[in-house]
Amino acid sequence: MKDVQSLGEALDRGERRAVARLITWAERNDPRAYEVIGTRYAKTGRAFVLGVSGPPGSGKSTLTESFIRKLRSEGQRVGVIAVDPTSPFTGGAVLGDRVRMNDHATDREVFIRSMGTRGHLGGLSKATSAAILALDLYGCDTIIVETVGVGQSEVDVMRVCDCTLMVMVPGLGDEIQAIKAGVMEVGDVFVVNKSDLDGARRTARELRAMLDLNHGDWRPPVEQVIASQGEGIELAWAAIDRYRAFMAEEERALQRRQESVKYELLGLIQTAIIERATQSRPHIELIDQLCAQIAERTLDPYRALQHLISTLFDLETTSSR
Amino acid sequence: MKDVQSLGEALDRGERRAVARLITWAERNDPRAYEVIGTRYAKTGRAFVLGVSGPPGSGKSTLTESFIRKLRSEGQRVGVIAVDPTSPFTGGAVLGDRVRMNDHATDREVFIRSMGTRGHLGGLSKATSAAILALDLYGCDTIIVETVGVGQSEVDVMRVCDCTLMVMVPGLGDEIQAIKAGVMEVGDVFVVNKSDLDGARRTARELRAMLDLNHGDWRPPVEQVIASQGEGIELAWAAIDRYRAFMAEEERALQRRQESVKYELLGLIQTAIIERATQSRPHIELIDQLCAQIAERTLDPYRALQHLISTLFDLETTSSR
Repeated sequence: MKDVQSLGEALDRGERRAVARLITWAERNDPRAYEVIGTRYAKTGRAFVLGVSGPPGSGKSTLTESFIRKLRSEGQRVGVIAVDPTSPFTGGAVLGDRVRMNDHATDREVFIRSMGTRGHLGGLSKATSAAILALDLYGCDTIIVETVGVGQSEVDVMRVCDCTLMVMVPGLGDEIQAIKAGVMEVGDVFVVNKSDLDGARRTARELRAMLDLNHGDWRPPVEQVIASQGEGIELAWAAIDRYRAFMAEEERALQRRQESVKYELLGLIQTAIIERATQSRPHIELIDQLCAQIAERTLDPYRALQHLISTLFDLETTSSR
Repeated sequence: MKDVQSLGEALDRGERRAVARLITWAERNDPRAYEVIGTRYAKTGRAFVLGVSGPPGSGKSTLTESFIRKLRSEGQRVGVIAVDPTSPFTGGAVLGDRVRMNDHATDREVFIRSMGTRGHLGGLSKATSAAILALDLYGCDTIIVETVGVGQSEVDVMRVCDCTLMVMVPGLGDEIQAIKAGVMEVGDVFVVNKSDLDGARRTARELRAMLDLNHGDWRPPVEQVIASQGEGIELAWAAIDRYRAFMAEEERALQRRQESVKYELLGLIQTAIIERATQSRPHIELIDQLCAQIAERTLDPYRALQHLISTLFDLETTSSR
């Protein structure tokens, strides 16, 4: 516990290394991370958390980098978490060392970190949430969470953000068009990046048409940008600001926060159950036994599940008394 | 229970509508699906299940369609499940009605179905597994499971397949290169599609170089194809067959099956816990209460989790006695 205390104190003093260590703990699912963050939770919630998502090749990193530059020019402290869910087995964060981000490598007011999963289900969003809280405690004014793709783990991550920016590009083919329909529901603000390419205006128009079908109170704006040239960045950020102003009305932000907390909590339960099931010897043996029977088709998975759950619950109850 | 019996009987008679109904039940997380499939589980495991994954725009559907044509020419009964995890909130399966797949719409020996999530965590892979079993019971010789993207939910889905084919394309940019490192670990066979485009040979060469770094017993082959023209389809399928032959040695297939069953079972536990937590009134109220406190920052999520878990376990034990 000495480690927990000294890291907590270093964090309170605003030491950069303490944040890095804390995020590493979270990534490794080290309980000390949650001890440090949990006891400081009341101090969190000050940072604005922006999610940036979109298909591969849409230029999310370039856009993020433009935002960093803009926010730094306003004197903000900025945190960036690049979430990389593509390597669930080894936990490598492939997108880590982005060349362009290196522009900010020596800027002490910018904290960039990439995160991968550590091989257990649900681990990525748990670790990402913790990293957001760590950067919040460090005093970041804005935290940008960048994810690649639009799968479930990205949605999990996007759910904890205050605002989600969806990055589209012209002409990525039919499948991207299909994906759009999915991201409609998570995007609060849309940009069409690489708007110097053919078809940018059409993509923006189609997006708007699709968004018109939504019947919420908020109609997500669609802005055209060329992130690589810094064009449209102010417009895009103004749209984000409009969303923030909208959410500030009528306690909408609190509502959103409650919903995302609920989603997060349910994710945490799932992760916790898996940890329980896979960390005690009798549980591990039981699971191996059941799996062998299922693989041989002498037991079906649904019956195995019933058996496993009742065992897990009984064992837990016994051991906690 | 009459429904369960009559559907089971219709399925045993080989009625196509019964399969469709069964998959719909699974998609809605209707327990009847698991009743029908669970009692017939011993009869499953005959179909060969091929996963097809890769980034958006890589031409997975076109490739799948080429495979369907090839397998049909051999007289096989073919099932296709197009998994669409992009719309977790409404459960819409956007990729459903693919124009090209319509070629097979009137072929009674081809069963094509798209699946989306139904809004609950873990639901997609649970439903997909059930759909695979349903098509297996229907007598499909080969079942192709197509997913878009490389997120966690896709990996969950790929894990239940007998062989995973990764579809790459030339020149999709740096981010795709990064993704490759992630998919290395799930891909058993690789194809570079659209090999008439510039850089196809380079992409294939780079893939091989990356795969050489792996130290498993199986070195995944890389084949170049042009799915839209049917070129390389036989080569690609031959590579898949080599993988099957390899897996047939030394009980590797059983080992793989046991691992995937374990993974699946852990996923099922997670899903079951969420169902428990969100279906009883006192649990729902407790969760809402905890979430309100977390949102107000008077309680931290990790402490809330502890409280929730102990309550869930105790309540369950009490109610089951």
